[in-house]
Amino acid sequence: MGDAFNGARFDTGGLWVTESVNLPSERNQALAVAGVVQNAGMRASVMRAAVTSGFGGPERLEVLDDVAVPEPAAGEVLVEVGACCCNNSDIWLREGSYGREDDSQAQAGWLREVEPPRFPLIQGADIVGRIVETGEGVEQGWLGRRVLVDTTLHDAASTEPYGIAGIFGSERDGGFAEYATAPVTSLGVVEVDDLSDVEVAALGSASFVTAIRMLKRARLVEGELVLIAGASGGVGSAAVQLGKLRGAQVIALSDPGKANTIRDLGADAVVASRDLDLPNAVRAACAGRNIDVAVDVVGGPLFSILLTLLRPLGRYVTVGAVGGPVVALDLRTLYLKHLELLGSTLGTVEDFHELIALINQRKIRPLVAQTFPLEDIHAAQTAFRNKQTAGNIVIRIARERRDN
Amino acid sequence: MGDAFNGARFDTGGLWVTESVNLPSERNQALAVAGVVQNAGMRASVMRAAVTSGFGGPERLEVLDDVAVPEPAAGEVLVEVGACCCNNSDIWLREGSYGREDDSQAQAGWLREVEPPRFPLIQGADIVGRIVETGEGVEQGWLGRRVLVDTTLHDAASTEPYGIAGIFGSERDGGFAEYATAPVTSLGVVEVDDLSDVEVAALGSASFVTAIRMLKRARLVEGELVLIAGASGGVGSAAVQLGKLRGAQVIALSDPGKANTIRDLGADAVVASRDLDLPNAVRAACAGRNIDVAVDVVGGPLFSILLTLLRPLGRYVTVGAVGGPVVALDLRTLYLKHLELLGSTLGTVEDFHELIALINQRKIRPLVAQTFPLEDIHAAQTAFRNKQTAGNIVIRIARERRDN
Repeated sequence: MGDAFNGARFDTGGLWVTESVNLPSERNQALAVAGVVQNAGMRASVMRAAVTSGFGGPERLEVLDDVAVPEPAAGEVLVEVGACCCNNSDIWLREGSYGREDDSQAQAGWLREVEPPRFPLIQGADIVGRIVETGEGVEQGWLGRRVLVDTTLHDAASTEPYGIAGIFGSERDGGFAEYATAPVTSLGVVEVDDLSDVEVAALGSASFVTAIRMLKRARLVEGELVLIAGASGGVGSAAVQLGKLRGAQVIALSDPGKANTIRDLGADAVVASRDLDLPNAVRAACAGRNIDVAVDVVGGPLFSILLTLLRPLGRYVTVGAVGGPVVALDLRTLYLKHLELLGSTLGTVEDFHELIALINQRKIRPLVAQTFPLEDIHAAQTAFRNKQTAGNIVIRIARERRDN
Repeated sequence: MGDAFNGARFDTGGLWVTESVNLPSERNQALAVAGVVQNAGMRASVMRAAVTSGFGGPERLEVLDDVAVPEPAAGEVLVEVGACCCNNSDIWLREGSYGREDDSQAQAGWLREVEPPRFPLIQGADIVGRIVETGEGVEQGWLGRRVLVDTTLHDAASTEPYGIAGIFGSERDGGFAEYATAPVTSLGVVEVDDLSDVEVAALGSASFVTAIRMLKRARLVEGELVLIAGASGGVGSAAVQLGKLRGAQVIALSDPGKANTIRDLGADAVVASRDLDLPNAVRAACAGRNIDVAVDVVGGPLFSILLTLLRPLGRYVTVGAVGGPVVALDLRTLYLKHLELLGSTLGTVEDFHELIALINQRKIRPLVAQTFPLEDIHAAQTAFRNKQTAGNIVIRIARERRDN
């Protein structure tokens, strides 16, 4: 990432200052030279944060005003958070709704381990903000940059899928707070000025990287027909845009009230997901063409309908199951139709940089359903669950300068 | 295929005669010259055959002695059947146990169409025999050749998976009879003399081509660890041999009584499939290695155990579900582990020729559990279901010269 700062816009090795970043005090500049802590001191020692104290209902999520501002460790930065997008994982993780492989009813975090995530925890996976402090060994050129943080903590040494070591908001604190730390390796620099922090958060990693990866995993190519379930949600609406960028024909499943919004994103047709004869409604929308790929974030009873609609040798890919995680699978359908059922979550380092490029090249656009200030995070999660509007629910952080 | 007859063993274009083939009469030689029917007349006009009269129990399967011997059409040959291997599909098809995509309980054939297969029908998918008659346009060099018939009827013009137009024993009559017709494009010439027809039938297309295709579909490569469920059956035992040929480490699930047989086929370890703590029994056999690929013909409750045992990014492939076709799938396991669930059945033309090459190069060996004469086909199917012995149940046809 350091190479990004060798361009014309930056004084190499210098301190880049904008209106939105306070100048570090002389004391901290001295510390920076000593390589211990750089640029600390321009912010308070405590902050407002939404803290999750354990598995449970909304009562386990509390907005506190006296949470210690974290210190960036070596190789990390401190981000003054401008906005943070809501995701299903925020709620599922708090509820412990991931189950375990050997017990689908067990209370567990997204890594499904017997040990729960460390609580108390600051959730929030899609952090957008400005860098106000750098840890040891981090180039000063990062200061003041607006960044989107990669949801995924990659571990190159891991043998786990894609080297996923954890996510922001679970294995380390996330962005439902005024400040968050992040490794420099997790940062993507946002170079477009006409998108607010809220809008960038709505283009966040959790939704878009997941959608980028799932379409790659399903090998969706130009000219194919993709059916996208849950097209009005974060991942679904991302998949609509990304499917069109890949040159596919997109049939979206959504509530009728959100159909125009989904069409505006590029969907070729929108079918009401609650149509009583969904298979034939989809077939009519496909005008005789076969469905090559089904993209699912819903699961539940919709799962087997999607398999029925897929052509022989078709690919189904899932990244979530808000409609019910345990489904009935007829193995005969799987083998007689030579189907592929693919699971995916999050993505690779390359997928994240692909997202940052798409944002900076303005090839994707945000779909913001509603915003809430941090103190109203419960209302935000209620709105998220009710899904009355298409797109993302974004938390505006109080100190955020552009969106309030 | 015609090129096979340009070798030293044949007079190109001539009539190849062995002891096991009667010379065609002068009348038929004349007809052959006229290009109408070639070499007919050296066999009776009626034959013994096991005829399935409709969906139902064993009572719908009857051995009759007065079934008309079929005439080979243009491009086809008449095969005097020596042996025919039993498969699950024989029983499932008779019972109509394939269900339909929109109704898993519906009675349907393997193509799961609303219309049942045409009855009466001669079943039997894995035909081995000698060519005794050729239809119009078929080279005389085929006469007397011992062939294994490709179970799958390929349709190059079809958009269905692998161009599968049907199978022997369903969309056209199969090998539970003294004679069967087959297109020349369906024939593989068996060039090894020390395998009986029964043994070649046990290396038959339905099991081995299916196993070849499923391992390709799962992309099993050298050095990987594959777990094979139902390893004592036709497809399972084929997968054990083919897995070893691919250089994989093979862990097999089987009844303890069949373990030695499975080990003889090359399995590195055999775990009792009914072990009360199967996950840990398998982990112990894997000695800390991760399972890359799970090969399944069983399904039922074993399905979710196999997913649990798979490593993240692991591949599961199924070609059957004798233990129960409708299973519970936890979509969270699928997406959080980035799994691939792959369905497969039968294979391509190339897969079939790969099988014929493996047979002729003696790289695979037959596993015959038991043989039965055609008149005892009910006892054969009972034995098939009871699965007391590892390997294939093969029907010997009465006129077969080498095996009786």
